[in-house]
Amino acid sequence: MRDVAIIGIGDTKFGELWDQSFRDLGIQAGLAAVGDANLSGEEIDALYVGNMSAGKFIEQEHIGALIADYSGLARDNIPATRVEAAGASGGLAFRQGYLAVASGMHDIVVVGGAEKMTDVGDVLSTEIQATAADQQWETAFGATFPALHALIARRHMHEFGTTREQMGMVAVKNHKHGSLNPKAQYQKEIKLDAVLKSPPVAEPLGMFDCAPISDGAAAVVLCCMDKARKYTDTPVKVLASGQASDTLALAHRESITRFDATSVAARRAFKQAGTDASGIQVAEVHDNFTISEILAVEDLGFFPKGEGGKATAEGQTALGAKIAVNTSGGLKARGDPIGATGIAQVVELVYQLRGQAGKRQVAGAERGLAHNVGGTGATAIVTILGRVN
Amino acid sequence: MRDVAIIGIGDTKFGELWDQSFRDLGIQAGLAAVGDANLSGEEIDALYVGNMSAGKFIEQEHIGALIADYSGLARDNIPATRVEAAGASGGLAFRQGYLAVASGMHDIVVVGGAEKMTDVGDVLSTEIQATAADQQWETAFGATFPALHALIARRHMHEFGTTREQMGMVAVKNHKHGSLNPKAQYQKEIKLDAVLKSPPVAEPLGMFDCAPISDGAAAVVLCCMDKARKYTDTPVKVLASGQASDTLALAHRESITRFDATSVAARRAFKQAGTDASGIQVAEVHDNFTISEILAVEDLGFFPKGEGGKATAEGQTALGAKIAVNTSGGLKARGDPIGATGIAQVVELVYQLRGQAGKRQVAGAERGLAHNVGGTGATAIVTILGRVN
Repeated sequence: MRDVAIIGIGDTKFGELWDQSFRDLGIQAGLAAVGDANLSGEEIDALYVGNMSAGKFIEQEHIGALIADYSGLARDNIPATRVEAAGASGGLAFRQGYLAVASGMHDIVVVGGAEKMTDVGDVLSTEIQATAADQQWETAFGATFPALHALIARRHMHEFGTTREQMGMVAVKNHKHGSLNPKAQYQKEIKLDAVLKSPPVAEPLGMFDCAPISDGAAAVVLCCMDKARKYTDTPVKVLASGQASDTLALAHRESITRFDATSVAARRAFKQAGTDASGIQVAEVHDNFTISEILAVEDLGFFPKGEGGKATAEGQTALGAKIAVNTSGGLKARGDPIGATGIAQVVELVYQLRGQAGKRQVAGAERGLAHNVGGTGATAIVTILGRVN
Repeated sequence: MRDVAIIGIGDTKFGELWDQSFRDLGIQAGLAAVGDANLSGEEIDALYVGNMSAGKFIEQEHIGALIADYSGLARDNIPATRVEAAGASGGLAFRQGYLAVASGMHDIVVVGGAEKMTDVGDVLSTEIQATAADQQWETAFGATFPALHALIARRHMHEFGTTREQMGMVAVKNHKHGSLNPKAQYQKEIKLDAVLKSPPVAEPLGMFDCAPISDGAAAVVLCCMDKARKYTDTPVKVLASGQASDTLALAHRESITRFDATSVAARRAFKQAGTDASGIQVAEVHDNFTISEILAVEDLGFFPKGEGGKATAEGQTALGAKIAVNTSGGLKARGDPIGATGIAQVVELVYQLRGQAGKRQVAGAERGLAHNVGGTGATAIVTILGRVN
């Protein structure tokens, strides 16, 4: 496989963007990435798009062709491919784009992710999120997506003594990081007390334990490494891509306090990159709920199993610590437009590795890791990026 | 890129399969393909699934993980990826699986396609099919998928003198081929008169000009060529994969009597395979409506533009002619469970190239071409397969 570099990035603000359509958002992010890479449209060989459920959110499937068309790329009849793995749709689209360049099939590929969630009401939106879980064994019996994560949280508290306060500290930290990110949906710091007293969604998870419903898009431009310097002085190298699956339903797993897909995807990615968790300085992990970040920092190997909550409460995952987790604000504060999330994680890492992250810059970041999850851990994608010196 | 072979195939009967769920169908096809390749599950590196709209048909997204899980592959945490491009979802999944092996990332990949359409009523099903078209510029104004194809048919009749009878002969031929295929949804021959007198769906298209609503699944196993002989004596080589896009809405094109995505995808595929239309003996083309096959045989270069109807009526695309088109029965008679269709086309070509097509065998078939379309030609995938002697 050939070496692959990221030569351009683009992202929209995340939030309730009622004045912008799905296609508006996708094109805005895509054009920003293409501009950042100093590309002309004719140089683009292919497009990949991550999207979970435009069919249900906006009555539109065939999302690859849609974005190719309205960004002007259909003029050159470029191949356009939509990829879906629920919450991991963006990370998975990135992986397919990476393979398309690594294989030698294409030299320059744009990978975008987008979701427009707020045009339907919150109830329908929650219903749509639940299509990521097992329809026959979970949602048909009324389980919502927050409820499934509440089960995980309760069990983690039971097994490891993880506390509500420790979970709350994930939200406090990520809102603090988000306050430093002008693209974040929430740029306000919150206090632990506010998290603990937030209205219950699925106990023990309150409103502030849950990532919001969001609109938004993000995009990157991938290029074979040997041509990357033609476009940018700061290419960022794709060191590894790991992917793994697990059972769709929680009930079919041996344990619900670890996501095996995460640890296996991480193992595969670390092997390809020739490093381990200690070689990573900055990570964007899938904190769709506060408990999810605690599982993630354990399953990725940053902390031993059961100690993710304690480590978070001690500040070991904050900006300035040895491993800075979710400097963008994460899904919790940056926002979570499902299909866009995996790409936005990569965009944040590129900002960090280029030294362009402003007030949230991690000093001396050499390697970054993105961790994108679908459902309650049935899909995990781990991407490792590195500075090119 | 490495050479890639197909070492196993599997497919379900297509039809109104009310006693089988989406997951049942996917697993049945997948296990058949894996068995055909003499594989044990542990040897499989990754899974790709083509599916258009399970979110809307069965309230389930996250299709890759679903199929990996219920076919037992999640035990090994294999990467599972769902790909969508409306009617071209299957062909596009095949292409991603091909790239995954060609890149060197994986050695053995299963690619499946499935759709369960008959659990919702015909009206909702037609509505869902229309999500392949442009929501803002076509379906929001009431255009159905058959109506958009009726516009194409009318214009083709106007420009080239194509007749209702010529279109009807596509259905007559494909039902005849379908009568030779024990997996086809319709295994009955029909007469031209029956097509012409069938109830109008969107004039000039009648009921028998339209592919049915179907349930079904199909799967193939891909392997790097240098390991293929370990599993089979009759590997079939993937000679080329071409993909192209076009505008989503018909109104935004220069012409609606040709699909540029088809001709560009074909040009790319022929270039990679080092051949042209004259080098193909058997083709599965996207006949979701009779007019679609006429466009296809023209745009693929089998016949000059405007002469597809005439060639069909003269029998030049039937079994026994120089180019045998839709020997499986095509979407029209084999059935069209959307996400499965592109894979079922590949399965039919493998039967033909192995010499296992029974009564519908094309004598001396050396190269086969599959042509899979999304929407009204906004995505086209052209795959070329060859015998390995």
